[in-house]
Amino acid sequence: MLRTHTCGELGRAQVGKEVTLCGWVDSYRDHGGGLFVDLRDRYGMTQVVFNPPDTPADIIDESKQLRAEYVIQVTGKVSERPAGMANPKLSTGEIELRVTKFKLLNKSLTPPVSPNANAQDMPNEELRLEHRYLDLRRPAMQRTLLLRDRIVKGMRDYFAEQGFIDVETPVLGRSTPEGARDYLVPSRVSQGSFYALPQSPQLYKQILMMAGYDRYVQVARCFRDEDLRADRQPEFTQLDLEMSFVEADDVIGVIDGLVKEIANDVLDLDVKLPLPRMTYDEAMERYGHDAPDLRYGLELVDCTDLAAKSDFRVFSSVAASGGRVRAINAKKGAEHYSRRGIDALTEYVAGFGAKGLAWFRVEADGTLTSMIAKNFSPELLKEFGARLKAEPGDLLLFVADEWKITCKALYALRTKIGAEMKLFDPRAMHFSWVVEFPMFDFDDEEKRWVAMHHPFTSPRDQDFAILDSNPGKARAKAYDLVINGSEAGGGTIRIHDPGVQQQVFSLLGIDEKSAEERFGFLLRALKYGAPPHGGIALGIDRWIMLFGGLDNIRDCIAFPKTQRASDLMTGAPGAVEPKQLKELGIKLNV
Amino acid sequence: MLRTHTCGELGRAQVGKEVTLCGWVDSYRDHGGGLFVDLRDRYGMTQVVFNPPDTPADIIDESKQLRAEYVIQVTGKVSERPAGMANPKLSTGEIELRVTKFKLLNKSLTPPVSPNANAQDMPNEELRLEHRYLDLRRPAMQRTLLLRDRIVKGMRDYFAEQGFIDVETPVLGRSTPEGARDYLVPSRVSQGSFYALPQSPQLYKQILMMAGYDRYVQVARCFRDEDLRADRQPEFTQLDLEMSFVEADDVIGVIDGLVKEIANDVLDLDVKLPLPRMTYDEAMERYGHDAPDLRYGLELVDCTDLAAKSDFRVFSSVAASGGRVRAINAKKGAEHYSRRGIDALTEYVAGFGAKGLAWFRVEADGTLTSMIAKNFSPELLKEFGARLKAEPGDLLLFVADEWKITCKALYALRTKIGAEMKLFDPRAMHFSWVVEFPMFDFDDEEKRWVAMHHPFTSPRDQDFAILDSNPGKARAKAYDLVINGSEAGGGTIRIHDPGVQQQVFSLLGIDEKSAEERFGFLLRALKYGAPPHGGIALGIDRWIMLFGGLDNIRDCIAFPKTQRASDLMTGAPGAVEPKQLKELGIKLNV
Repeated sequence: MLRTHTCGELGRAQVGKEVTLCGWVDSYRDHGGGLFVDLRDRYGMTQVVFNPPDTPADIIDESKQLRAEYVIQVTGKVSERPAGMANPKLSTGEIELRVTKFKLLNKSLTPPVSPNANAQDMPNEELRLEHRYLDLRRPAMQRTLLLRDRIVKGMRDYFAEQGFIDVETPVLGRSTPEGARDYLVPSRVSQGSFYALPQSPQLYKQILMMAGYDRYVQVARCFRDEDLRADRQPEFTQLDLEMSFVEADDVIGVIDGLVKEIANDVLDLDVKLPLPRMTYDEAMERYGHDAPDLRYGLELVDCTDLAAKSDFRVFSSVAASGGRVRAINAKKGAEHYSRRGIDALTEYVAGFGAKGLAWFRVEADGTLTSMIAKNFSPELLKEFGARLKAEPGDLLLFVADEWKITCKALYALRTKIGAEMKLFDPRAMHFSWVVEFPMFDFDDEEKRWVAMHHPFTSPRDQDFAILDSNPGKARAKAYDLVINGSEAGGGTIRIHDPGVQQQVFSLLGIDEKSAEERFGFLLRALKYGAPPHGGIALGIDRWIMLFGGLDNIRDCIAFPKTQRASDLMTGAPGAVEPKQLKELGIKLNV
Repeated sequence: MLRTHTCGELGRAQVGKEVTLCGWVDSYRDHGGGLFVDLRDRYGMTQVVFNPPDTPADIIDESKQLRAEYVIQVTGKVSERPAGMANPKLSTGEIELRVTKFKLLNKSLTPPVSPNANAQDMPNEELRLEHRYLDLRRPAMQRTLLLRDRIVKGMRDYFAEQGFIDVETPVLGRSTPEGARDYLVPSRVSQGSFYALPQSPQLYKQILMMAGYDRYVQVARCFRDEDLRADRQPEFTQLDLEMSFVEADDVIGVIDGLVKEIANDVLDLDVKLPLPRMTYDEAMERYGHDAPDLRYGLELVDCTDLAAKSDFRVFSSVAASGGRVRAINAKKGAEHYSRRGIDALTEYVAGFGAKGLAWFRVEADGTLTSMIAKNFSPELLKEFGARLKAEPGDLLLFVADEWKITCKALYALRTKIGAEMKLFDPRAMHFSWVVEFPMFDFDDEEKRWVAMHHPFTSPRDQDFAILDSNPGKARAKAYDLVINGSEAGGGTIRIHDPGVQQQVFSLLGIDEKSAEERFGFLLRALKYGAPPHGGIALGIDRWIMLFGGLDNIRDCIAFPKTQRASDLMTGAPGAVEPKQLKELGIKLNV
């Protein structure tokens, strides 16, 4: 080793000892006669002093060339800092190293991304990604990647203790187009054929259950060739697991235990189990969303019956045509939102399809006032107030529309108001489950049922009977883990009966030929003694973001891609040689 | 949970308890009045009895339909087996479960690959791979995958304890053709550009050192689009690590510790440290190979000086033209190999380029006899005998050729004789290091130097001076871990000086423009304070093969590819829809 210690471990205990450190010059201060250097590595920072009489004159001379990010090796005695010079903020703040030997290990150009930049001096993200080797030196990035290591290690240990076996599934798989777009890999050996990178190890993990592995876990890289949103990456990592002879409660119970352990380890948080659960129907009714942020209330309240009684045409006509009139009560919102503020909210919900935002302020005497108040009898207004638990100073906000739009618009509104009125501690963590999702969603464009999770999801026992007759009402053995309003994981109990699997395929418009082509091996495997099984996948990148309190998924990943799916450091994707394409039996068609 | 216990945990302690088990019918025996089932899961096997009076008549009736691999749930009392019926070979052999409740969870067709087939009844590998869900039920496959899980977990734990941080590097990278062929992934967003799947995380891990992560580890999936040999897979897994501020000894020391820990944990073996090391030059001289099997001796002995003195033209002319005459002494080989046996050996070494195999038998009186003996004086024969420590009954085998061919032919011969004469215990494990490989190998076809490891490898300090003047003599800071004659890992100390990196690139014929195009980001990163660093990669699949005593790499992998790089279960690679290709801006050119 080129060093005896790291830059983070020396203290009073080592005073008098000769040690050798290696690291980067974080900062340096030339005091004329000598030089002070803050020497940095992953473990910390140590003050290194080039000063007579300890340091020979030639070394002091040499040290004068040091600049930020130079890499050096220094040997010397650990010494107590002079009286009054201790730095209580540093773990090594009581000592310094007085240099007697010195070696310059490497120089550095002036770094365009400074590892010790203040937040306000941070260069733009493009420059940071281009020079990721410098950006990754920033303490904030190092903390995040260390946190990631710790969380993933914690997960692995937890599942190992629970008897899960880690099995690697292939990256070079088969394209089974369903949902997202596959990344394809042309085969050289079988020209004209392609591998696909896995969107998840879903079918392999089900196969492992059929092969009797009982409890499988993997930290799996997955791939989706989608147009990237801010929080999506073309490759992402999921904690993937599957269990045999279980019901939804068992999978949920295992993950409950994981949440408790990780939250305790990483955040020193005591999470009470079992985590709260609500059904999908309840979540949509109370929050308008299937992954509600439960760090605060601000629930949606249905007022369709009251709206039907009003003379306000917008309300009554929506109620009459089978739509919904729903509202949220922004407590003390009347003070927070001026008339102009409410206009901004109205404009905001329009972005989610709402044609308008009706509102009432609650006056000191409890009456509701608004431009539209004249359309409501005082009695009816009282009923609205009672329904919404209105108190003086509150702001009542209504959206009247078809059900889906009231959900979207009001959940967006709730989120905006929650943030603007600071209704929760942003460091707070809330974990919960949403369960019993619909089996199917009707795709209005394609006029057909699509799987809400995926086509291998089992309906609830009581819903087998209505699967064909009323698919929209059928609920699945499905469960999503929600952290702070983000879907942090999703799973289902799978179909283990080959007949039911065929039935669900056919409901989804996948005919027998196509099912055989795409999922033939699964259908065959189901016929050789498939056990009841189910599992879940947790989004690791998302977990790191939530547990690290970060707001950019790229900060959770060592080498992320941009929203154009490119790696600014290496320049991937890039051009390849014509010979490579020829060998693969493909040519460009751009 | 659908069960209270697994099929592997019940014993005397649970007698009298009501339990529920789930599992597969491994075998069944109909005794007229009732049925005995061996119920199997990952954890073991339990005898389940459908018999009056415990089992109701309707359940006994139902049970008669059970066949191999049916999946069932049974409830009943754990009972001691009747006197004399205990099975001491089973951990659950003292008890049986007397069924009171029963549920058929799934049926099975007659499996074409039987999970409990004897070795001699094993279907061919193609059928096994096609029905991998059945093949993976075989106890041997389950043992291997559990071993794999345990070894990989052991590695992760070991490196975590040593302060390594697990960082995920991208799978969608940049093509930098060097050595093996890349798998390519067409980009949809940047049509005409391609990602490459990583052949190793080499550059990323070096970047992580430059970013100050100090100790990195990852279990990384890697990809090579090569024509597959028996022990190669298109995707494979390596334990990849890198360390800063270290020398070769430090990396070797860390891996020594790992070997000791895994061998102890998995094989209950006490490995003495440090593991033995020899230089590449010594390995080639003594064994003719850079990853010699050291479970037995049978070393190569140079006899060129003696050969030069003989009248045997084959020997003397090779010696005169700068070639080598080398031999192995197969102790007691004269008894083992008849004249016909020696002919077979001669034919065998011809496959490795040797034009012939000269031999002597050592007679009871110590004289050497052979058809060619007349070309040698008795004194010279004595010298040969002494050099080779010949004793009565030995067989001396010579190859005279250029150095490379003597290495290849004699190492092959040594391996063949070692196996045929059973010179070692096949369960024995031997770990060692080969160090100080040449920096470069001269490619006779392309008439240029190529990197022996890769172009980022540092020369030994004393060899910087001869790098340009005598590249063939320069030795690298390189080290390979050898287990039983297999390369189980390889690593190097890397170049951290941008000038040296340029120099090595130019020796390899990579001009500045090409270096910039392919490795520009690395060259830039080297200029911003790169620390001295080095690392290693261990082949996990190979480790499993060696520690599991297996001879087929496909048996170490849950879902392997064939030698045609296809997955017989899923049918990957497969056809894709024209729409998919169009979106990617490519078309077939088959």
